[in-house]
Amino acid sequence: MATVAHPGALTPAQARTMFREGTSLPTAGWCAACTQVNIITVPSDWAHDVHMFCRQNPQPCPVLDIADRGSWTTALAPGADLRTDLPLYHVWEHGRMIAEQTDVVDLWREDLVTFLIGCSFTFESALTEAGVPLRHVSQGGNVAMYVTDRECRPGGRLLGPLVVSMRQVPAGLVDTATRVTSEMPAVHGGPVHTGDPAGLGIKDFTHPDFGDPVEAEPGDVPMFWACGVTPQAALMASRPPFAITHAPGHMLITDARDTDYRVG
Amino acid sequence: MATVAHPGALTPAQARTMFREGTSLPTAGWCAACTQVNIITVPSDWAHDVHMFCRQNPQPCPVLDIADRGSWTTALAPGADLRTDLPLYHVWEHGRMIAEQTDVVDLWREDLVTFLIGCSFTFESALTEAGVPLRHVSQGGNVAMYVTDRECRPGGRLLGPLVVSMRQVPAGLVDTATRVTSEMPAVHGGPVHTGDPAGLGIKDFTHPDFGDPVEAEPGDVPMFWACGVTPQAALMASRPPFAITHAPGHMLITDARDTDYRVG
Repeated sequence: MATVAHPGALTPAQARTMFREGTSLPTAGWCAACTQVNIITVPSDWAHDVHMFCRQNPQPCPVLDIADRGSWTTALAPGADLRTDLPLYHVWEHGRMIAEQTDVVDLWREDLVTFLIGCSFTFESALTEAGVPLRHVSQGGNVAMYVTDRECRPGGRLLGPLVVSMRQVPAGLVDTATRVTSEMPAVHGGPVHTGDPAGLGIKDFTHPDFGDPVEAEPGDVPMFWACGVTPQAALMASRPPFAITHAPGHMLITDARDTDYRVG
Repeated sequence: MATVAHPGALTPAQARTMFREGTSLPTAGWCAACTQVNIITVPSDWAHDVHMFCRQNPQPCPVLDIADRGSWTTALAPGADLRTDLPLYHVWEHGRMIAEQTDVVDLWREDLVTFLIGCSFTFESALTEAGVPLRHVSQGGNVAMYVTDRECRPGGRLLGPLVVSMRQVPAGLVDTATRVTSEMPAVHGGPVHTGDPAGLGIKDFTHPDFGDPVEAEPGDVPMFWACGVTPQAALMASRPPFAITHAPGHMLITDARDTDYRVG
């Protein structure tokens, strides 16, 4: 693994092996054109609640797969181990993040159910193809994410605010970015807001709630998309006794292709 | 309610009131163009399993709504009481049907979750409009339903065979019936089989597993559609401790319109 030139050129299996062996980095720009997903793992008596929350909020929480009870495998990434193959995990108890760790083998239980939720990284290859620059990738950082003042629809025992990812887009390419992402409804679809962050109740734009701040270039306009970190905000608000998630921006890289989620 | 001429002319609210007051009849042909649904009610610790089974088998089990935990209301039928407003219920324990009753108020619990699942009656108004006669309606009976030899995909702890509804269709209208129903994928879609019942492993065609036998007319061909009774077969096979369902053919009549589920 030591001689790899660029993470974008890795296969998903290579990337997962690196993460399994301890590498811990945000995955934006890794494994070009391969689908990355958010995960949320809960005890089975909370699985219906997560499922309902996703059903009620398909834009931030598009469910791409659900692992069988107790299973750490997914059809989207044959050979992957959901307990070890993400670069970084967050562990939650009663709505508080109590640990950040690079695997969760020690915490796994037979009653855990894992949801794989679409990620906006999936439309980034389409944006790049359409000529829209990705500032966070060229600046070598994680995408910036913000908690908004928009409430999701409650689902089961879960409720909470919408979380968004933000990209700085040259004004002349806003329409293109809107069109390209609208063609991918299974991975958050078109933007929920474009322009002034105050429109989403974001008070401190320079300090994202998750991820890294991004430098705008002259003429850039901020665009905001529904984000798969939304279920984590719901965990904070709804306080289930136990949960595991990916750390924001540290995704599971699957063998699915981003183009699988394009319609029309 | 005594002067009603034909059940097809009733409003859903009128029909539900009759059922609430004790009327117990199959609902085929009732409340023209209004959407009828199957129900399955389980304790919340089995809700994820039912949800997964439906997700894995969307053709027989299209989920049109899911009631909140403990709730007996649904957005599809404002004012309806899911405990009283169906004409007949089946009560299940450990995979066995232990009671048939006209309401389930005495059995309701705070942890019950109810799934509303699409019903092939929904495409019957479209069939009628297209000139396809409905033999079971003109013969005044319930639709005929059969357990097949096709296994559903397991979902959660549920598994079981596909159940189908059967309609005798004049040979010259088979293509029309296929086209019309294929346009309604949210309520079972096109037929799963047309012709010889043996193709689905049906051994005794004259004795349906649920509903009433139907007289074929000369030139009729049997057509088979995935059926919302499929989850009941899964209850029998998978034996959850407790469940409530509608009695086959005795549906919840909602305020939704059949045309809401037509695409294209």
